[in-house]
Amino acid sequence: MPAKPKLPTLDDVAKAAGVSTATVSRCLNAPDRVVKATKDRVLAEVARLGYTPNFGARAMAAKRTFTVGAIIPTMDNAIFARGLQAFQEQLHERGYTLLVSSTSYRPEIEAEQVRTLVARGADGVLLIGYDRDAAIYEYLASRSVPTLIAWAYDKENPQPSVGFDNRASMQALAQLVWDHGHRRIGVISGTTQGNDRARRRLEGLRDVFAQNGLPHEALKVIETPYGVKNGGIAFAKLMAGDMPPSVVMCGNDVLAVGAVRRAHLMKLDVPRDVSITGFDDIELARIVSPPLTTVHVPHRKMGRAAANALIDMVETDSIGPFPPLQSKIRMRASLADINGNVTGTPDP
Amino acid sequence: MPAKPKLPTLDDVAKAAGVSTATVSRCLNAPDRVVKATKDRVLAEVARLGYTPNFGARAMAAKRTFTVGAIIPTMDNAIFARGLQAFQEQLHERGYTLLVSSTSYRPEIEAEQVRTLVARGADGVLLIGYDRDAAIYEYLASRSVPTLIAWAYDKENPQPSVGFDNRASMQALAQLVWDHGHRRIGVISGTTQGNDRARRRLEGLRDVFAQNGLPHEALKVIETPYGVKNGGIAFAKLMAGDMPPSVVMCGNDVLAVGAVRRAHLMKLDVPRDVSITGFDDIELARIVSPPLTTVHVPHRKMGRAAANALIDMVETDSIGPFPPLQSKIRMRASLADINGNVTGTPDP
Repeated sequence: MPAKPKLPTLDDVAKAAGVSTATVSRCLNAPDRVVKATKDRVLAEVARLGYTPNFGARAMAAKRTFTVGAIIPTMDNAIFARGLQAFQEQLHERGYTLLVSSTSYRPEIEAEQVRTLVARGADGVLLIGYDRDAAIYEYLASRSVPTLIAWAYDKENPQPSVGFDNRASMQALAQLVWDHGHRRIGVISGTTQGNDRARRRLEGLRDVFAQNGLPHEALKVIETPYGVKNGGIAFAKLMAGDMPPSVVMCGNDVLAVGAVRRAHLMKLDVPRDVSITGFDDIELARIVSPPLTTVHVPHRKMGRAAANALIDMVETDSIGPFPPLQSKIRMRASLADINGNVTGTPDP
Repeated sequence: MPAKPKLPTLDDVAKAAGVSTATVSRCLNAPDRVVKATKDRVLAEVARLGYTPNFGARAMAAKRTFTVGAIIPTMDNAIFARGLQAFQEQLHERGYTLLVSSTSYRPEIEAEQVRTLVARGADGVLLIGYDRDAAIYEYLASRSVPTLIAWAYDKENPQPSVGFDNRASMQALAQLVWDHGHRRIGVISGTTQGNDRARRRLEGLRDVFAQNGLPHEALKVIETPYGVKNGGIAFAKLMAGDMPPSVVMCGNDVLAVGAVRRAHLMKLDVPRDVSITGFDDIELARIVSPPLTTVHVPHRKMGRAAANALIDMVETDSIGPFPPLQSKIRMRASLADINGNVTGTPDP
């Protein structure tokens, strides 16, 4: 790579534009909050001088970088996409830029990405769910980087979070399934190891069926990584016995879509032959046929609330607690009662 | 925020572990390429001392940060998700961490994000498509940051890219539609302003119908931002005239899924009453009913190739050109001939 030219400094820009270094920093990082005439003058000098803010200069000038990091388990499957998009839009409103990393559900990659984001100067970090090595939390605390959990809410856990109660949400759906008369239950759960959202959902479901006195052997659970194909494979396994379940409850909509598609291939009518439920209410849930009865997660609301909470943590040392968000059940056509009658609407 | 404790340096870690600073840097950034015993010793000291690599120290030690930035138009809708996931996996294989930003299709946000990624020390940047203000390219060149385009390939354009020819891809699909006997064509295009992928697809489609002598008034085009809802609205408009199209070709699968759903609500049978085609072959294309005839984009292959190309640019000053990728047509059940006969397979 060719040698880089000697770099102009924040001071050079500030002097040329006749403003303070803090104003230059703000023009670059939170331009919405600077008067247009000032901003135009500063940005003209930035362009003329070819100034690139660097970590040290900005940190000195503004005590922060106006950059926030988020680490999500996957960019695929759109599970986190909608909430993250709203998170980013709200960060932008408040003058921050979002940098995202995805772990492919591999904890050792998350640790590496946390280090990278801290090294790149992130003012705060958003993580999904609670489950991770304590060393990661200790590391972030030792570096004084505000850290917010999203997609989960557990009032027992002291870590600040903006999310919903995965266990209670799945309890509500399981009770609905029970009330529809189902007594042979198949479950396709996401991998629970290292994933508190998946584990809480499965616990919520077990809670309800146990409370209602369902015999242990009437509940069949398969765990599998999230994915359309995996949902289909697990569904075929659950349906293979001579007493197949009348309903298959899935840990998320992606698994449920895989189950519905496999049911079609197996010439099973959903929901007359077998009901299928999801979780998340992502766009897929309405596009698959029949549309899924599922738990609606307020993705966009959660994303915006998380952005505000994390910025408050960065700017005002807020440590929460932040109010939990409410999920709700979306009744659609993939759940019938035990006699095959559908009570959900086809396309709400 | 509480004052941060005095930070241990790269030198401190190197001394404590009895290795060079370059080895420490490599342990943190490309651990797969360090002998396990060395890595374990270094990481133990990193943990014990609570060392956080910072931009300056790492840049000095390794001349790079092993961080790559990608800026994509949206995280929603899964259009870029699969390719980006593969891009990240391959970067990880080669010891790099990916940070992603999304612009919500707003060019002024892209400029801000480019500055942020450069300021955060990105070794290289991936951008989607060619269309953007020349100042962004000039800025990246002036900072000597290798920049790769993906999701597009134009042999006339000197900017290095790893992608496919959007125009030729849509030409192939349009010719197929023509060969199926369709002569009244509706088109739902993504917004072409500032989006060369959308524009090239629309050009490809116009090329073929003009070459075949289709009268100008037989081609009706609506432009709309990508989105399921927008696809539905545009579809309803196209079908409202007294000579509605026999086929509606969509700029991507997301628009096409919106069109299919709206067709169901309008009690139109797809493809017997109207054929619908997509572009991208994202997961949705197979999940919607009927599944979409579409252009298959090799998302994962493109993501991996882009990672290798960009790292080669960073490490060896490669400037391409990189070979274009090939798209291909996926025949499924949403396209019939003018007599309503389906030749595609339902679920390939």
